[in-house]
Amino acid sequence: MEGDPTLRLRIFDLNCWAIRYLSKRRQERVRLIGDMLRRDGFDLVLLQEVWSEQDYSDLKGKLGGCYPFSHYFHSGVIGSGLCVFSRFPILDTLLYQYSLNGYPYMLQHGDWFCGKSVGLIVTKISGIIFNVYVTHLHAEYCREKDVYLPHRLVQAWELAQFIRHTSKAADVVLLGGDLNMHPEDVGVRLLRGWTGLRDAFAEAMRFEGCEDGCTLIPNNCFTVKTELLPFPLGIRIDYILYKATSSVTVKCEELKTTTGTAPGMDIPFSDHEAVMATLRIQRQGQAAGDNLGTAEPTLVDVVTEARTEVVVGLHAAQRQRYSTGRMAVLALLLLLLQAAAALGTLAGLAAGQPFPKLSFSLLAFLAIGVLLLATILHLFHTMEVKMLQGTEEQMRIALWALQERP
Amino acid sequence: MEGDPTLRLRIFDLNCWAIRYLSKRRQERVRLIGDMLRRDGFDLVLLQEVWSEQDYSDLKGKLGGCYPFSHYFHSGVIGSGLCVFSRFPILDTLLYQYSLNGYPYMLQHGDWFCGKSVGLIVTKISGIIFNVYVTHLHAEYCREKDVYLPHRLVQAWELAQFIRHTSKAADVVLLGGDLNMHPEDVGVRLLRGWTGLRDAFAEAMRFEGCEDGCTLIPNNCFTVKTELLPFPLGIRIDYILYKATSSVTVKCEELKTTTGTAPGMDIPFSDHEAVMATLRIQRQGQAAGDNLGTAEPTLVDVVTEARTEVVVGLHAAQRQRYSTGRMAVLALLLLLLQAAAALGTLAGLAAGQPFPKLSFSLLAFLAIGVLLLATILHLFHTMEVKMLQGTEEQMRIALWALQERP
Repeated sequence: MEGDPTLRLRIFDLNCWAIRYLSKRRQERVRLIGDMLRRDGFDLVLLQEVWSEQDYSDLKGKLGGCYPFSHYFHSGVIGSGLCVFSRFPILDTLLYQYSLNGYPYMLQHGDWFCGKSVGLIVTKISGIIFNVYVTHLHAEYCREKDVYLPHRLVQAWELAQFIRHTSKAADVVLLGGDLNMHPEDVGVRLLRGWTGLRDAFAEAMRFEGCEDGCTLIPNNCFTVKTELLPFPLGIRIDYILYKATSSVTVKCEELKTTTGTAPGMDIPFSDHEAVMATLRIQRQGQAAGDNLGTAEPTLVDVVTEARTEVVVGLHAAQRQRYSTGRMAVLALLLLLLQAAAALGTLAGLAAGQPFPKLSFSLLAFLAIGVLLLATILHLFHTMEVKMLQGTEEQMRIALWALQERP
Repeated sequence: MEGDPTLRLRIFDLNCWAIRYLSKRRQERVRLIGDMLRRDGFDLVLLQEVWSEQDYSDLKGKLGGCYPFSHYFHSGVIGSGLCVFSRFPILDTLLYQYSLNGYPYMLQHGDWFCGKSVGLIVTKISGIIFNVYVTHLHAEYCREKDVYLPHRLVQAWELAQFIRHTSKAADVVLLGGDLNMHPEDVGVRLLRGWTGLRDAFAEAMRFEGCEDGCTLIPNNCFTVKTELLPFPLGIRIDYILYKATSSVTVKCEELKTTTGTAPGMDIPFSDHEAVMATLRIQRQGQAAGDNLGTAEPTLVDVVTEARTEVVVGLHAAQRQRYSTGRMAVLALLLLLLQAAAALGTLAGLAAGQPFPKLSFSLLAFLAIGVLLLATILHLFHTMEVKMLQGTEEQMRIALWALQERP
């Protein structure tokens, strides 16, 4: 590829669904993924949900020959699940952990424990500097009543801001990952509009794969069919996005997805389909300039729409902060009342029969439990309020800057 | 200032020590700080430890006339404490929360609850783009046995990486804040070496203020005198650092610090001294290039030294993860043993006298408590291990890139 005036880059992106003890036939699938990556020889491989560092080490061992450079992004209790394999040297890395990522008490939705993040690696190919980002945003568990929408929007905003601020020296920006948003969702429009990133599926000269480029399809034996009932073709939530920021042009020659079962196998690689893009990168004479992808009046609308959703989330978080605070105060009052009653009984001030000891102690234990829990939740929702406020203010500044621009 | 070929910029930096209910004469001091800032008319004001958003609002109300632009960085339970007042429009902002920041169970050292971060604002003055960073790193409570050194080094590294990656399009980079490190400490050398930032105190053409530029001095009535016993002049831990990254030169014409009591007052502004720099910024013909501040062999040594400290921290965190995990397992075993004994007694299998009920229940409660606490600590130290590993790997990549450079 070196010395060639046109650079062709093959990129592979997959949410691997490799959760220890929970994901079906995990080890077998990770083996299959490794075999395929070794056989097909991509240039850059962006993986999500590789939660077990052992799986990463196994992949690294297997792929060392064809992808000599790799990086795992550590974060959270379990890990970020994000990793990159590359044919080209990784010159620098950076991790940004999203400030909001669901609720720790929603144990059935384990997102909070994963430390959802965006990882950046910098690489240089034929003299062209690439900033490659890999990410995984908070899942959407119920589209009709999506309580995580404000958190996912904060993540989309932080992702866009992180890319904008860190990619100023890059010739090409690539983003791969599971955004957990449909292409027309406000978060995707915000991300694309605010960064100028283009959607490889929409831009591809050739496409081969699931209809509409879907990456979560009923045809995949691991997907939950009931969740996809409103979408008979499936949904598209895994993306490869790109832009050129200086004297370089990028075109997507081909985009492919897997289509359920892995080629020649009886099972798919994951519950998601893989996205594979072939990009053609060319140097050109004059600089293209760092233009935003969406016309600015539209961008103002998108940022305003996202900001409205963040404000809705802010009000919900403020209500929760208030109600958990009130519960803590009530539990404290109950404890104080009990303490007063107990002291009164000890001092012989109480007339008549004291409370039965057992119920009295149980009530005190209950009050202490509620006080502790409500205090922790109150602190948590206080942090949530602060982060939503912070995002809302950042978006306000962004809107102001957009409108002030000559 | 507009149209002037030479730009003179006056910057004010202060750790305000404005902790609600804890800091002495807080409201009075915040009022004094506001009065002085209004009177002296700086261009940029970088404040730390403004923990109460009410104090920020009061300052904002008072300073609106001379500093029409301001930003408070929200994060953590209490807030980041970081804010900026500016005479020039704030065009963009970004917040990066450090991944490690002490231990939640060290309640007497409240750092963990503060969500220590670095805040970035972007502003444009006379066509020159400024990236202005404000930060506050983890405190050093005991210099002889500094258990927080690995955390502070991770923060210094993340700060350096964040500045490097986000400042590529800036003409001038400014950093102000309380780094909680002496000028010769490895963290300061790492930050300066890895970013190329220069120390305004070392570069200043004129200096006026405390000897050696100290910002924590025995002469200040709010400092803890015993902590400064080994340093009779005081210590320098608050900094203004800067660099020019393109066709611009920056020189520090003057650096000043306050010297204990505020001018004309009976008390100081804070327990820290303020740092005030006058910078002269000039456009020049050719680009200066983005060179690192320290010669590369020295930089390799500094990164290696920092990495060694991070590895020491990693081993300590691994030991703590192991011992908390073992404690959790022991508590679980005790509980299981008790459950077996209780079941045996219920089934009438046990020969002889059962345990006294009260001690038996108390022991069970104790075991549950230890199990819960040890599990939470185990999860926390698991995260700590992951972040230290992540930093160590980033540093390894950095060293490799430094050594591979032609």
